[in-house]
Amino acid sequence: MTQVRNVKIVGTGKYLPSKKIHSNELDLVLGVKPGWVEQKSGVKMRSFIDNETASEMAAYAAIEAINASGLQKEEIDCIVSVSGTMQQPIPCNASLVQKQLGLSNSQIPCFDINSTCLSFVTGLDTISYLIHSGRYSNVLLVSSEVASAGLNWEAKESAILFGDGAAAAVLTKTPENESSNILAGHMETFSEGAHFTEIRGGGTKLHPNNPNAKYTDYLFDMNGKAVFKLSSKHIHPFMEKLLSYSHCTLNEIDLVVPHQASGMAMRILRKKLGIEEAKFMDILHHHGNTIASSIPMALHEAILQKKIQRGSKVMLLGTSAGLSIGGVVFEY
Amino acid sequence: MTQVRNVKIVGTGKYLPSKKIHSNELDLVLGVKPGWVEQKSGVKMRSFIDNETASEMAAYAAIEAINASGLQKEEIDCIVSVSGTMQQPIPCNASLVQKQLGLSNSQIPCFDINSTCLSFVTGLDTISYLIHSGRYSNVLLVSSEVASAGLNWEAKESAILFGDGAAAAVLTKTPENESSNILAGHMETFSEGAHFTEIRGGGTKLHPNNPNAKYTDYLFDMNGKAVFKLSSKHIHPFMEKLLSYSHCTLNEIDLVVPHQASGMAMRILRKKLGIEEAKFMDILHHHGNTIASSIPMALHEAILQKKIQRGSKVMLLGTSAGLSIGGVVFEY
Repeated sequence: MTQVRNVKIVGTGKYLPSKKIHSNELDLVLGVKPGWVEQKSGVKMRSFIDNETASEMAAYAAIEAINASGLQKEEIDCIVSVSGTMQQPIPCNASLVQKQLGLSNSQIPCFDINSTCLSFVTGLDTISYLIHSGRYSNVLLVSSEVASAGLNWEAKESAILFGDGAAAAVLTKTPENESSNILAGHMETFSEGAHFTEIRGGGTKLHPNNPNAKYTDYLFDMNGKAVFKLSSKHIHPFMEKLLSYSHCTLNEIDLVVPHQASGMAMRILRKKLGIEEAKFMDILHHHGNTIASSIPMALHEAILQKKIQRGSKVMLLGTSAGLSIGGVVFEY
Repeated sequence: MTQVRNVKIVGTGKYLPSKKIHSNELDLVLGVKPGWVEQKSGVKMRSFIDNETASEMAAYAAIEAINASGLQKEEIDCIVSVSGTMQQPIPCNASLVQKQLGLSNSQIPCFDINSTCLSFVTGLDTISYLIHSGRYSNVLLVSSEVASAGLNWEAKESAILFGDGAAAAVLTKTPENESSNILAGHMETFSEGAHFTEIRGGGTKLHPNNPNAKYTDYLFDMNGKAVFKLSSKHIHPFMEKLLSYSHCTLNEIDLVVPHQASGMAMRILRKKLGIEEAKFMDILHHHGNTIASSIPMALHEAILQKKIQRGSKVMLLGTSAGLSIGGVVFEY
């Protein structure tokens, strides 16, 4: 069965907070030898919030995406937050973004879709069915992540990977005489890896007021080796399935936009899947891993850098906590 | 444009934890006069977890729903958590539910949709487009809430409303010769009320390790009067729109399943909208407000109690933090 949806990405935007953290500064802070942080992470510089909130960053990225789309913000008829972190437990992120956009009496429906680092991919894949069917006309998808709030600097090897930032996209139904569309989406979750990547505390199981919780319970914890082993086992057959659902060969894909997980993860992924370097979007060096913002931010950069033109075939591909693998193939 | 989706609810289930809290016990604990808690909340008894986790409760409800559907759990091809709370910040709830269901190597895609108390309604509305189009065949929607973890007993009037519990539904495409379908869905968000109902702390803005946070920052806080005023203003035109999208009159609706917010909220809603008592599903008395589980739990009870038959027209309707109003009309 075909999965094609007549959906067009009409605008993208990104926002990075102004505080820039260079890897050589982190070398000093962490007491490691010069060059270690960059070599280990593949990240030269990341941005951390100063006092921006996630919804403020989301609004900046959203406004850029809306401006690029040529629409007015009032024409947006659904706001979906696709982030792996939340600004506060209640209400959902998207409501806070609506307020930040000055649309607080607009009636625009707001909700969140979350699959951690894959939230943008899952959101695009899911919501495109509602656009194709005519339920919504102009949807704002926005990822905004304050990774820095939850890093454990005693677990250096994971903490050095991340950056803060937001990215957004505006989606509409493809106009009659144009060919933009979503060709296919696919997702697989292997919860045998559910505890390989986690923040254990802060939800209902280990509530912030729990006196028995340690401060590290509220911080990001990853068993990198286990994640690598499980995702390595499944990523190649996953991509083959995604390509077959898309009725595409890898050769026909003009650009792969991967989750910007880490330098090593991206290198291994690219080689394992046989993707040439020129067709593999890499913004890790100056952004770090910005959780769910990574993929839309790399997509935004690919569009700005003209690595994608109208008609280009693009594959979004990544792994996330869960452990999940997800991807979407679309004609831009 | 018609919104009709050929989607059938083929099974539902619920789970309540075994610890029962009667309102007359709370009268004593809170030092109020006998009868105050029940009179104020409309709740006679609610259930609180003993040591169940949200994903355990979700799995119990899910198994009941899957059994009722006649499917095997391995036939589920998408698991969507539709809860207003999270068990832990990473990974998403649905992955933890997959693991709890013993499906950890099943590859079933797992993600969360969150619009606080309306999460089930938003999830049903959204995911039904993917079922209608053939993307997924058998979807498990599950809400599981540990409200008790975040209650502020110094704010008696809101704390006494809530209960813990889970509810689930299995959705499939409607078989050829049957008439079950989703007639319409609608949602409106008014973020002028984003801070009327909130838990401020525990996310990236006020992280659990923030030394300046007070313990009440991590607890539920509601300005009931402001919520009431804003939702009262919009609920009637909202329902009129939902009915018009459904090509239905209120008279043709066999049962309204409202969010079980509070005794007073439900009474006022019913009268304001002109819904007769016999057509208004009320399980508040023995469940309390179980956040996003409220609506699917009341739906499950309505099916068990035969208030809904195949062919019945049902309206799910509620408000949530955000502030959002949402609803779905379907033929069961």
